[in-house]
Amino acid sequence: MDNKFFNGLIVTILSLFVLSACSNEDSEASTDPADSEQKTSTEQAESKNLIVLIGDGMGPPQISLTRLYQQEYHDKDSLALDEILVGTNTTFAGDSTYKGESGVVTDSAAAATAFGTGHKTYNGAISVTNEEVAKPVASIIEAASLQGKATGLISTARITHATPAAYAAHVRLRPMENAIASQYVDAGVDVLLGGGERHFVPSEEESRYGATKREDQVNLIEPFSENGYEVVYNQEELGNAEGDKLLGLFDDSHIPYNLDRGDTTPSLAEQLEKAIEVLDKNDEGFVLMLEGGRIDHAGHANDIHSIIQETIEFDEAVEVALDYAKEDEQTSVMVTADHETGGLTIGSHGIYDVYFEVFKAIEASSELIGQELEEAEEDQDVRDIVENYTGIDNLTDEEVDMILAGEEVDGTPSQYGREGSFNAVIAERSLIGWTGHGHTGVDVNVYAYGPVADLLAGHSDNTDFAKAGAEVVGLDLDAATKNLQEKYLYPKFIQNRDGDYLFPAKALAEALESEIEVNDDASVEIEGETFQGEEDNEEVYLPLEAFSKLTGKDLTWDQLSERIVLP
Amino acid sequence: MDNKFFNGLIVTILSLFVLSACSNEDSEASTDPADSEQKTSTEQAESKNLIVLIGDGMGPPQISLTRLYQQEYHDKDSLALDEILVGTNTTFAGDSTYKGESGVVTDSAAAATAFGTGHKTYNGAISVTNEEVAKPVASIIEAASLQGKATGLISTARITHATPAAYAAHVRLRPMENAIASQYVDAGVDVLLGGGERHFVPSEEESRYGATKREDQVNLIEPFSENGYEVVYNQEELGNAEGDKLLGLFDDSHIPYNLDRGDTTPSLAEQLEKAIEVLDKNDEGFVLMLEGGRIDHAGHANDIHSIIQETIEFDEAVEVALDYAKEDEQTSVMVTADHETGGLTIGSHGIYDVYFEVFKAIEASSELIGQELEEAEEDQDVRDIVENYTGIDNLTDEEVDMILAGEEVDGTPSQYGREGSFNAVIAERSLIGWTGHGHTGVDVNVYAYGPVADLLAGHSDNTDFAKAGAEVVGLDLDAATKNLQEKYLYPKFIQNRDGDYLFPAKALAEALESEIEVNDDASVEIEGETFQGEEDNEEVYLPLEAFSKLTGKDLTWDQLSERIVLP
Repeated sequence: MDNKFFNGLIVTILSLFVLSACSNEDSEASTDPADSEQKTSTEQAESKNLIVLIGDGMGPPQISLTRLYQQEYHDKDSLALDEILVGTNTTFAGDSTYKGESGVVTDSAAAATAFGTGHKTYNGAISVTNEEVAKPVASIIEAASLQGKATGLISTARITHATPAAYAAHVRLRPMENAIASQYVDAGVDVLLGGGERHFVPSEEESRYGATKREDQVNLIEPFSENGYEVVYNQEELGNAEGDKLLGLFDDSHIPYNLDRGDTTPSLAEQLEKAIEVLDKNDEGFVLMLEGGRIDHAGHANDIHSIIQETIEFDEAVEVALDYAKEDEQTSVMVTADHETGGLTIGSHGIYDVYFEVFKAIEASSELIGQELEEAEEDQDVRDIVENYTGIDNLTDEEVDMILAGEEVDGTPSQYGREGSFNAVIAERSLIGWTGHGHTGVDVNVYAYGPVADLLAGHSDNTDFAKAGAEVVGLDLDAATKNLQEKYLYPKFIQNRDGDYLFPAKALAEALESEIEVNDDASVEIEGETFQGEEDNEEVYLPLEAFSKLTGKDLTWDQLSERIVLP
Repeated sequence: MDNKFFNGLIVTILSLFVLSACSNEDSEASTDPADSEQKTSTEQAESKNLIVLIGDGMGPPQISLTRLYQQEYHDKDSLALDEILVGTNTTFAGDSTYKGESGVVTDSAAAATAFGTGHKTYNGAISVTNEEVAKPVASIIEAASLQGKATGLISTARITHATPAAYAAHVRLRPMENAIASQYVDAGVDVLLGGGERHFVPSEEESRYGATKREDQVNLIEPFSENGYEVVYNQEELGNAEGDKLLGLFDDSHIPYNLDRGDTTPSLAEQLEKAIEVLDKNDEGFVLMLEGGRIDHAGHANDIHSIIQETIEFDEAVEVALDYAKEDEQTSVMVTADHETGGLTIGSHGIYDVYFEVFKAIEASSELIGQELEEAEEDQDVRDIVENYTGIDNLTDEEVDMILAGEEVDGTPSQYGREGSFNAVIAERSLIGWTGHGHTGVDVNVYAYGPVADLLAGHSDNTDFAKAGAEVVGLDLDAATKNLQEKYLYPKFIQNRDGDYLFPAKALAEALESEIEVNDDASVEIEGETFQGEEDNEEVYLPLEAFSKLTGKDLTWDQLSERIVLP
């Protein structure tokens, strides 16, 4: 499944390496604390607490369709969200100088960096600048932590996935989820709840779910425990938890879709309630980010019933946040999405209706149904599986053939296979439209309650979302960024045959405010000492010791977190 | 071209006739003035003037894409619209009791009735209730006129098209544009500017543009002149006009797309400036509606460059309205769309970009290019036409074949023919996505300036748009509706072989608050007089005289306006 979500990024990730070869003045400028006029402090803050809720892939059509569904089946005229709509945000990746190169359509990493830290960056980047030796930019969670507030992150996706990651980690490319998990150990986030145990455990044996992605055999559960985290794995354990710090890992990868979920998985609303209970103890207040992470995944798959069910779950969490804020009277709530996913439209083919009954009856995610369909050997298998999960007992021969053949896009097989063609049948029958399996660039809605609402009213850029959040609870994002940039660098690197890490000579020297002269044989001499580097793609890479010598600073490479630690 | 826009309505228009066979209590109730709490007067009004701007088919993606285009090519960071975003509106047709029957996706007629009058109705209806003998519901333009304000309607579509029509006319089905034009003669709208001369002139000879749709040979220009209207046909005449009442007819059908337009056609901004100049003379203030009507047409055709150019023209009109309102300080401005058109998405196929340069170079609407393509006889003709209009000189053989074959939808030829397949090639090359040629049901954005902004903030239904407009300038919509309902009825009718008009016996008697007993031979006897009716589709229809006799009222049938005039 995982590689599906990165498909659309190939072009942009490639362009990153082109981009990173040239220094980007604008990007550097935008991270310079001196540029900002924003000077706030907790004393002037309008709110003590801030709850941020992100619907990943929850574009305008996802919201409109979920409301229509609720009107149709649950006699609800509106969503909890509808009560607090205040504006819209642009979503494009990159800033005005390089958005062309990164593409106007954002991925979740660039988007979360923008609305989490206030800085535009390239698609794939987790809260770092667009440079060969990238600098970290701080999120409102990191700024809050620095200023003594309690903090939390919640997601139905892996807790190491792009959206939560951008709030408390920094990596050059989002798939570096082991490094993200490693960074969480000392990130100071008090509550971390979501999926993704596989990036925390060293072996299948030591996993509650029988899976690991840590080929480095590192166990992160132990350092979390040492740092005072209570670690929980299901609804009951979450409910009983009494610690001041919580790590909840409710699946090895993403938390299952609502349609597939068992009884033991806590809902987003339950996770939020628990998180508030824990964080509320801090007298300085708290900042909390919750992501409905799988609206996006269902969008990628074109799984319409899961989109609706995941959005309903998200909306119920919004209701919990609003209930708390209304009673507490010291809390701002702000909600947005990173982008739309799937190119969803309500109606298609020029017929002015949607047949909700077609997908209302579907009892599992298309991911699960698709797995069974992949095993189907003949027509009747397809008919049986589809009828079992959807009640549809009249598939045409053409539809059966279509499902068996698997989805094709532009004449080539789609990675979604029979799941894709199954969803195409559902779309056709229900009049739902899709234009692909990736993100689209429509503005997303912004919702807010409490003092932050005035700051977010109207149309603005997604970077303003972070700035408004910081302002309303009195966070100094620039100070937090400065703090991080004094500690860490996130360079491009290569490994040589001996497994040693080597770093780009010119770019890293520059980032360390120094200069370096490299010999033709890729070596350098510094104060009589010779360091041998390697050339890769017309660029010379050197061992870190060369830079320590050059600058007189004791630089260290934190392999687990994939970053240079500055002394 | 025209029949294209009604294609999506076939299902809903059919359902209308099913619906109209049963009385709809809810619909009747909703038009009862006594039900409303809204009691306002011009004395309490917060604004003296109101300018309403409607982008037909201008959904969220149309707006986001136009902004991205302006950033890319005109170094404009935002649209005039962006400055005044305040919320979103739902768009579904019908009310909660019958929206299912009418489909959740609206057409422009039901939408304009909703945001023009505050009443939900069925797809295809122009400001009438959903009944076999429909009642008129009044718009803010009609209410303003009744209360002594000056009023105006502007559109790039035919001025008899659904959106302007819903503000000053009442018909059972939107294609009755001759009746709409006829109703305009006495509607009291001071300024009418747009296309659609063909519904005002009796012959090709008497048309400035050589076209007519008035098979009844009726000339409406004369009664307009008699009523004091100065009639203008181009930019120069409009500029020089000095009358207090203006009828501007700038084409026989819709005003040409921006990409195809000659020098003599006034822009929306110019039309708005002139309209304001004329209406501003009224001491009681004015209410004015302007429609960017062809954003929708370009959406239906999937003509991406025209969508952007039409939206830019609309946005320039918004800027004129805002400039006036800011200087005047007594004016509210409100902007929305009726629905999204085409299922447009920014990006498709999972690639996170849009290649603007593909369509930026296109020098004509696809309507015009398509007409030439229909004449192409061989591959080279297609290559020549496409290169001539788009600069694309590298069409693949596959693309040429695709264009020559004409568009297919679900294996059957699309009405868009080669225009459709040409636009599919452009979409594919530019990464624009479409899910059809009809409307979709996503919420639309709401923009406002001045005192009306507070009334429109947040998410609401499109009927609230009309109510907010009425409130801010102190209009009594219910009184205006009562006034209309005392004058007119809009019944279903049939014509017999002699050309006589006959009306549904039971329904019309009921609407006149009476009862009627029909004999088995479709006749009725009233006070000794026998009226012979006809049966059609299990319903008896009678001549109007029978109802006059029945009620003692002198009912007349206004054939030109297709309505019963009550004494």
